[in-house]
Amino acid sequence: MTVFDDELQHLKEKLLKMGSLVEDAIKDSVRALVERDNALAISVIDNDRLVNTLDVEIDEEAIRLIALRQPKAVDLRFITTAMKITTDLERMGDLGVNIAERALALNDEPVLKPYIDIPRMREIAQGMTRDALNAFVQRDERLARDVIIRDDEVDDLKHAVLQELAFFMVQDPTTVTRAMKISFVAQYLERIADHATNIAEMVIYLVKGKIIRHMAVPPEIP
Amino acid sequence: MTVFDDELQHLKEKLLKMGSLVEDAIKDSVRALVERDNALAISVIDNDRLVNTLDVEIDEEAIRLIALRQPKAVDLRFITTAMKITTDLERMGDLGVNIAERALALNDEPVLKPYIDIPRMREIAQGMTRDALNAFVQRDERLARDVIIRDDEVDDLKHAVLQELAFFMVQDPTTVTRAMKISFVAQYLERIADHATNIAEMVIYLVKGKIIRHMAVPPEIP
Repeated sequence: MTVFDDELQHLKEKLLKMGSLVEDAIKDSVRALVERDNALAISVIDNDRLVNTLDVEIDEEAIRLIALRQPKAVDLRFITTAMKITTDLERMGDLGVNIAERALALNDEPVLKPYIDIPRMREIAQGMTRDALNAFVQRDERLARDVIIRDDEVDDLKHAVLQELAFFMVQDPTTVTRAMKISFVAQYLERIADHATNIAEMVIYLVKGKIIRHMAVPPEIP
Repeated sequence: MTVFDDELQHLKEKLLKMGSLVEDAIKDSVRALVERDNALAISVIDNDRLVNTLDVEIDEEAIRLIALRQPKAVDLRFITTAMKITTDLERMGDLGVNIAERALALNDEPVLKPYIDIPRMREIAQGMTRDALNAFVQRDERLARDVIIRDDEVDDLKHAVLQELAFFMVQDPTTVTRAMKISFVAQYLERIADHATNIAEMVIYLVKGKIIRHMAVPPEIP
């Protein structure tokens, strides 16, 4: 192991740490909603600064590595990809905060219906996040492809949620504001899955030099 | 001018070109909605591949510049920031496509009401996009701060749109599916403005070395 290998390893570990904080934000924000747990929602909002700190630290470390070690093709691409991935992770953390904020608002109102599809969306999106980062640090193209495939399930669930919410709103106008808030949560989860998909696409590009990015814009019909 | 200066200038021009395509997508997708122009919506969807091509080209050029010229601190940060900005721009292009898709769906149905706030959101978001990129290539911190301030206007307009749509849905259940589609358009525009804000924050960080990124998560209460 050279010093550079060590430094690269350290960068990977920080990125995985950031990913695990984002996973917590996804899990806990949805749990705060489902279990109507305001304290948990507030902790998600508070903890976002840890994600933000890592975002800046990873960027700084990446810049320092490039300037100091002048890495060649493969390593250079790895490091610049890491810098792009932190941007995605940081936004995913923000989306966790957005879900927590909606949870606080919804927890003040009567339950519209038990949440079923939203926890399933959360589960898939969280798994996609974990696997996308593992695919990156292990340069595992197959795992990255598997992440991309799962994005369709999240989209399907979102459409199901939005259709059900539209049904509620049509049947009973008093549900409109609550249903809209729940629809936002479904959209935040879909965006989290989109970010994981973007990371997975960058991994495939990194490993194969193949442009899977931009094959198609994911359709978003509710 | 050194060869490197030329190359850097070329990178800037490509980024501005990408920005101007994204601006077109924002402008034309909303015009396709307001003027019920399906052909225009389809052209936005088709043109997105130009944005995607530039995304990859700019990334490749940036990597090549770093590997070949081994730029020092300021230039290196400029180039890695450009790589992060293309990610934002590419997503903004996708959001233009999403708006165009919604326009196609909405153009098939009776008009719910004339669009007033959505064109205003579009105008501000488009201006923010242009100014964020100009702030980047000119390292203009004041312009970047001005972009960030305007994000609040877009948020306020989005809240107004969502409230009005909720009112429609409560009054008349037959409006629910159309109102939901329009609410998505408002959210896409808000996200475009968020991306422009992210770019502006990166510019300030680049110019000042100051972390304005992550000052706060934008509240998203409708």
